[in-house]
Amino acid sequence: MNYEQGFQVRIDALHAEGRYRVFADIIRQRGAFPKAEHLRGGAHRSVTVWCSNDYLGMGQHPVVLAAMHEALDTAGAGSGGTRNISGTTHYHVELEAELADLHGKESALLFTSAYVANDAAIATLVKLLPGCVIFSDEKNHASLIAGIRHGGGQKEIWRHNNIKDLEAKLSKYPRHAPKLIVFESVYSMDGHIAPIAEVCALAKKYNALTYLDEVHGVGLYGARGAGVAERDGAMDQVDIINGTLAKGFGVMGGYIAGSRACCDAIRSYAAGFIFTTSLAPVIAAGARASIRHLKASSAERVLHQQRAITLKQRLTDAGLPVMRSQSHIVPVIVGDPVHCKAITDLLLDDYAIYVQPINYPTVARGSERIRLTPSPVHTDAQMDYLVDTLSHLWSRCPMSQAMAIAAQ
Amino acid sequence: MNYEQGFQVRIDALHAEGRYRVFADIIRQRGAFPKAEHLRGGAHRSVTVWCSNDYLGMGQHPVVLAAMHEALDTAGAGSGGTRNISGTTHYHVELEAELADLHGKESALLFTSAYVANDAAIATLVKLLPGCVIFSDEKNHASLIAGIRHGGGQKEIWRHNNIKDLEAKLSKYPRHAPKLIVFESVYSMDGHIAPIAEVCALAKKYNALTYLDEVHGVGLYGARGAGVAERDGAMDQVDIINGTLAKGFGVMGGYIAGSRACCDAIRSYAAGFIFTTSLAPVIAAGARASIRHLKASSAERVLHQQRAITLKQRLTDAGLPVMRSQSHIVPVIVGDPVHCKAITDLLLDDYAIYVQPINYPTVARGSERIRLTPSPVHTDAQMDYLVDTLSHLWSRCPMSQAMAIAAQ
Repeated sequence: MNYEQGFQVRIDALHAEGRYRVFADIIRQRGAFPKAEHLRGGAHRSVTVWCSNDYLGMGQHPVVLAAMHEALDTAGAGSGGTRNISGTTHYHVELEAELADLHGKESALLFTSAYVANDAAIATLVKLLPGCVIFSDEKNHASLIAGIRHGGGQKEIWRHNNIKDLEAKLSKYPRHAPKLIVFESVYSMDGHIAPIAEVCALAKKYNALTYLDEVHGVGLYGARGAGVAERDGAMDQVDIINGTLAKGFGVMGGYIAGSRACCDAIRSYAAGFIFTTSLAPVIAAGARASIRHLKASSAERVLHQQRAITLKQRLTDAGLPVMRSQSHIVPVIVGDPVHCKAITDLLLDDYAIYVQPINYPTVARGSERIRLTPSPVHTDAQMDYLVDTLSHLWSRCPMSQAMAIAAQ
Repeated sequence: MNYEQGFQVRIDALHAEGRYRVFADIIRQRGAFPKAEHLRGGAHRSVTVWCSNDYLGMGQHPVVLAAMHEALDTAGAGSGGTRNISGTTHYHVELEAELADLHGKESALLFTSAYVANDAAIATLVKLLPGCVIFSDEKNHASLIAGIRHGGGQKEIWRHNNIKDLEAKLSKYPRHAPKLIVFESVYSMDGHIAPIAEVCALAKKYNALTYLDEVHGVGLYGARGAGVAERDGAMDQVDIINGTLAKGFGVMGGYIAGSRACCDAIRSYAAGFIFTTSLAPVIAAGARASIRHLKASSAERVLHQQRAITLKQRLTDAGLPVMRSQSHIVPVIVGDPVHCKAITDLLLDDYAIYVQPINYPTVARGSERIRLTPSPVHTDAQMDYLVDTLSHLWSRCPMSQAMAIAAQ
């Protein structure tokens, strides 16, 4: 076995498919975001970021940054331990209380990321509930799939957002069998929104637990920013809500919220929770400040939705292949990984617009896309320039000719 | 199925075994660490932390905190994206270069934690190298075990730090079969140190890759703080080194370092790397400042080792059951989860000494212990008081009577 060759073969395969990923090296400009400095080959250049999941610009909000500076001054850098071994600081305790309140649940539990929250919580739930069958939406995120696989239990994959198919699958099992329905509120690459209340009604009918990933909903929907389930009046029907502190809230980390016994059991048995250093206090402090602000202020949410609607309409009017979406996600389909990369390279190099190509495995092959994330901090002028630029590119060159553009 | 009851049964089982974990709620006092405020029932009380893994006190080092304040001012709170989708900031690029240099490797790759690094990297290595057999030390950490399980390949468990047993197991497989030896430099609960050079020699003989977890070594050992492998002159023999930014370096996050092709392949295929928001820039900035400082300064390392030797000797002289250890880890065996919890409750309540009981599953049942972590920032007076207090407790009451003490 030649290991280096073994690794190189796998990398070469990505190059051959045109989906080898090159990470853009940027510095976000605090106070001027979505502006960022793009670094390449020793040169710095100002660009506008149109693909960040800091959906509301909370990553530069003064209340968030003030809380983080203060936590650094008070408590220092890291927590120094796992949650059990000196790594539970008062910042963690307060943040978990804030999250439980946000979602109207008895408890919340922090993880180092929402990926880890999904992976650890779902795998542990399956182990805590022997014989548990998982009912998973076919479009679920990689982190949910990781948790389902790592739990090792039986699973049923139901068709995306299809209540009839979910019911057909639930009805195959006896009422007493433990069941967990795993789904998302906002599917982040297509922008679809789940019929949360209907899923919960089925869960009640068939005695299943519900686990809802609100990663692309928290901060953004609902009167206090608790997510789509809050907006839809269904939050109290969901058993376990998963969320992130890294997108709408602009910081880092993830969590679940649920009943006291459920969170306590996961706290006590999940290896991915137990055996890892807790979030840095500075992160917990910033996240809490962000949540508190967005509980009280809807201005960011209202503006966010307005700008998403405006951008979708303007791109549609310009004849671009925008996917229909009920959410803030604005996907523009390209359909080929090489073309997708060529378009985004052109946008970055010639137009200072930073949008990352979204290729397999993040989306299915053949549905490669650019995914735009308008925010309250994008100005009218920035949106005008984006729409004009994309219209110009598409009008001169339908996507099938994108390579020709790139080659100019 | 009554789900709430199902969860409660699992929690009750922990109470019955005496190993239900109660997290102490503290606020580390920046500038005065290991002092912390302990919060309980509305009261604040000053305590001394003797169980933190902020081994060198870097979590309060001025150069680390200055770098973090500056990063907050420059770039804001979170990164706003996965590494591929706008979440690679220059802080990440610089930190990965710093880590590659630290370990003398071509590349390094950041993860949200060292747990995630182990889980994601090992599972991905097994998938990248079809038929790969894992050779795992029986005392390996939960995160290494997670990666091995999630990889789904064949595994051989070798006896702890036992080179003969490792060779016996390696020799069963043909030379051309892919093999990965997974082990740790410092076993954190016992303080054992692995024979790294001997393991690497065997790896060469049998054409195996080596994956070394230096989580409890980085920052603490070696001329530039690269770990035990650096100290032992074996670092260039190790293929993949895993480390944390959360212990010796005092911040948060984890990484691997290795060949360019290896890191690039893991970067390109590991779901736990791809589908998660990157570390906040503020965290990356603090970690880099800490690494740079400890590359140039050995003062903290020297003092750390001196204090560990002194504490072990003083506890031994006082007749306490200190485990023999070649490292900075100072475990004092209690051997029963209920007694262990009673002793640490007493230390916290009556003596303002904060040490967490270490029970199953962190250590094997019957080997429950308190685990002391002396550091350069613990004063002589603090050590005197700790030794006096433990001597007093043990002299009045051998551990088998610990419950009697607690009941006083």
